[in-house]
Amino acid sequence: MSETELAYASISELAPRLASGEISPIDLTDVMLARISRYNAVVNAYITVTEASARESAQAAASAIRAGNYLGPLHGIPIAIKDLFATRGIRTTFGSRVFADWVPDYDAAAVERLRDAGAILIGKTNMHELAYGTTSENVHYGPVRNPWNPAYHPGGSSGGSAAAVAAGLACAALGSDTGASVRQPAACCGIVGLKPTFGRVSKFGALPLAWSMDHVGPMARTVRDCALLLQVLAGYDERDAGCVRREVPDFLAALANNIRGCRIAVARDYFFEDCEPDVVVAVEESLRRLRDLGASVEDIVVPDMRAALAAGALIIAVEAASYHAADLRERPQAFSKELQATLELGGYYSGVQYVQAQRLRRKLSEELHEVMRGFDALAMPASPVPATEIGKDPPGHARLRSRNTLPFNFISLPAISVPCGFTKSGLPIGLQLVGQPFNEARVLQVAYAYEQANTGPAQYPDLKRVTSP
Amino acid sequence: MSETELAYASISELAPRLASGEISPIDLTDVMLARISRYNAVVNAYITVTEASARESAQAAASAIRAGNYLGPLHGIPIAIKDLFATRGIRTTFGSRVFADWVPDYDAAAVERLRDAGAILIGKTNMHELAYGTTSENVHYGPVRNPWNPAYHPGGSSGGSAAAVAAGLACAALGSDTGASVRQPAACCGIVGLKPTFGRVSKFGALPLAWSMDHVGPMARTVRDCALLLQVLAGYDERDAGCVRREVPDFLAALANNIRGCRIAVARDYFFEDCEPDVVVAVEESLRRLRDLGASVEDIVVPDMRAALAAGALIIAVEAASYHAADLRERPQAFSKELQATLELGGYYSGVQYVQAQRLRRKLSEELHEVMRGFDALAMPASPVPATEIGKDPPGHARLRSRNTLPFNFISLPAISVPCGFTKSGLPIGLQLVGQPFNEARVLQVAYAYEQANTGPAQYPDLKRVTSP
Repeated sequence: MSETELAYASISELAPRLASGEISPIDLTDVMLARISRYNAVVNAYITVTEASARESAQAAASAIRAGNYLGPLHGIPIAIKDLFATRGIRTTFGSRVFADWVPDYDAAAVERLRDAGAILIGKTNMHELAYGTTSENVHYGPVRNPWNPAYHPGGSSGGSAAAVAAGLACAALGSDTGASVRQPAACCGIVGLKPTFGRVSKFGALPLAWSMDHVGPMARTVRDCALLLQVLAGYDERDAGCVRREVPDFLAALANNIRGCRIAVARDYFFEDCEPDVVVAVEESLRRLRDLGASVEDIVVPDMRAALAAGALIIAVEAASYHAADLRERPQAFSKELQATLELGGYYSGVQYVQAQRLRRKLSEELHEVMRGFDALAMPASPVPATEIGKDPPGHARLRSRNTLPFNFISLPAISVPCGFTKSGLPIGLQLVGQPFNEARVLQVAYAYEQANTGPAQYPDLKRVTSP
Repeated sequence: MSETELAYASISELAPRLASGEISPIDLTDVMLARISRYNAVVNAYITVTEASARESAQAAASAIRAGNYLGPLHGIPIAIKDLFATRGIRTTFGSRVFADWVPDYDAAAVERLRDAGAILIGKTNMHELAYGTTSENVHYGPVRNPWNPAYHPGGSSGGSAAAVAAGLACAALGSDTGASVRQPAACCGIVGLKPTFGRVSKFGALPLAWSMDHVGPMARTVRDCALLLQVLAGYDERDAGCVRREVPDFLAALANNIRGCRIAVARDYFFEDCEPDVVVAVEESLRRLRDLGASVEDIVVPDMRAALAAGALIIAVEAASYHAADLRERPQAFSKELQATLELGGYYSGVQYVQAQRLRRKLSEELHEVMRGFDALAMPASPVPATEIGKDPPGHARLRSRNTLPFNFISLPAISVPCGFTKSGLPIGLQLVGQPFNEARVLQVAYAYEQANTGPAQYPDLKRVTSP
């Protein structure tokens, strides 16, 4: 395998070769570190590269595998961690100056699980400040750049994770999603991102943005790799009060089934509105693919998603303002001007408005469950708009970028973004598939069937081209 | 049995006699209705007396029992329902003019369970307006009066339920408790009131005051009767999103055990402060009784309960203002002036304050669980102050009345108030026993042991004396 092939190989391809000793975790890690030192100056996906400890972990993985102690498909796989997750002994900034010097003495639950599965933590990824935004234009650590076009943002807030995976600077990454932050950057960077159901993955050690909306999820280059990661991440953890005691199915096994007879719902009334034409064309084409695969695609009318978007945004504003209230009061200068204003605004909502937003949440949730009854997935563009130029945010885009994703943090349903084509200017587009509560397996199954029928050879950005001056 | 004996007999005494046919549910219901028509004009415990349907239910119970279809210990027992619970075909006012004409077409879950157990619904009890207050001085339906002294309030908000049970106008009653409303009126009226753990009893069909603080609980003249009622009320109900899927133990069986070796915690630092001397004397005496019964009584220091009280009160204010916002805007005149002001005040808190109160809740909850680890119960006065004269609320009492109870709605632990003596002026005092989450059985067990050792012949108010001019 060439260096590029190795860097872009899926975990599913790498795992048996790592298990057999054909590929060494040391070489794989070396390739990633070499690529990071070559390309990160441009892409700016990492805030911290854990070179020394990654090499140590790679050595340890190599020894363990040689000794016959192979731990499973993530053993020896370099994985990037959004800098929102606490990492023992490794600076964890939350993309903020407030936390610039924080070195946790514990691992977030998700990090712990990845480490226990043998994954190699290769670095902490850049992100939108405090995870509150969707472009990853970070004033403290510099903007993340989209590997498909470095003049463009990669989406956010997990923009560094998405860019690292898309640029072959990690095999996969950990992200978090409060309104868009796994799925929309995945869509913008042409990778796969999954937001599970609330309570499926422990949030212990993930710095909160808005506790009732926050989700932890995997980002990878293939649906199967996402399933592999979710298998490791999912499960009860008493340290997260929102985490649910619920059986974790075999997500990989689900991929074996075809989707003949699956029922896919489409609600053009809301989710296809205000979308860029290229995005609509790509998603409509993906619906035809799903039909060709034997799924039925049926129109439905969903409850008031505009209200879900508004109420969800209010909840994020209030919970974020609450979490950061003390820091905002004591050292406002540590926040970017823009975030400072946003957080202050969150302080102006009343308790009654917040409670009413939460009450609406329950009502809309029941209504949506009702109209989705019997369907396997709801399909739509992950983001109505593709990435745009850094520093030139078109009017209304801030709201548009989370328009189709935030409702599923508000009403927590599992949702995946899977690449479904490119705009005429060559920027990736994501198809979002939203499933029934705790049925991530079905979401993965539909996404996998689509991905297999759709992509043929995987497509990657030509970094040499985009990063040369 | 004399009429008075019958009216004051416990459910446990009545049940076998009803089962055997020795006592007829018709006679028992007649006695209650006769007493209601004699005494309710003074006590004002009922807003609605369901005379006709109660007689019908009594007839039906009598026939069923005669036919060998005895349903269990509540079969044929007249029970009063706080007018906060929806009752099919029976006006449900919530103690408010807003709901003065509301006739629900469904039963609240708790009412349904009591009916299914064969209980006879004898009437809907008066309460503090919208359950937001602790004296049951209702301007729309008149003040409830304390059967021990009709110049005094009975506590609240479930004041009508407490007064009905204390006055022998029902065998038991259903109450609700958001900060005090089952336990404090039980204490003021010399009966037993239990607030279970959040999620133990369905709140479906109970009009909310503050959804995250509201609890449904039984009120009765003995601990055993409370256990009997809880046995019927407890259990999962999918119609209440807060209701928990959790095994319901045999609460009656728990009463058989003695409390030798039980560990009772006491936190004098907070819960004995600001209490009237008579109250402290009675509760200290009850602690000696518990020690005599073989329990160990140990001092502990609890986390900041003043903060719990303040944050809990804020949460109630915001959630109540949210629930009643539309009515308050559209017909403010339907609210009492006092409640109107209170609800408007609730509108002024910020979302950040609300969220911070909820976050404090989790923190204090963890801290309290930590210090209560290994203890069977925490003992204290249910209310620092006994009932006071209607229309003459002493300064600070509004806050004092929920001082020791509201923290256990904020941090939801099961808690019972059991009579433990009288003030020098003859007003009842309640001992509160607070247990571990979902261990109502242990709370009942300790309360039962105490009650058996303490009271000897049950004490009842002399209604003839108090109600004659």
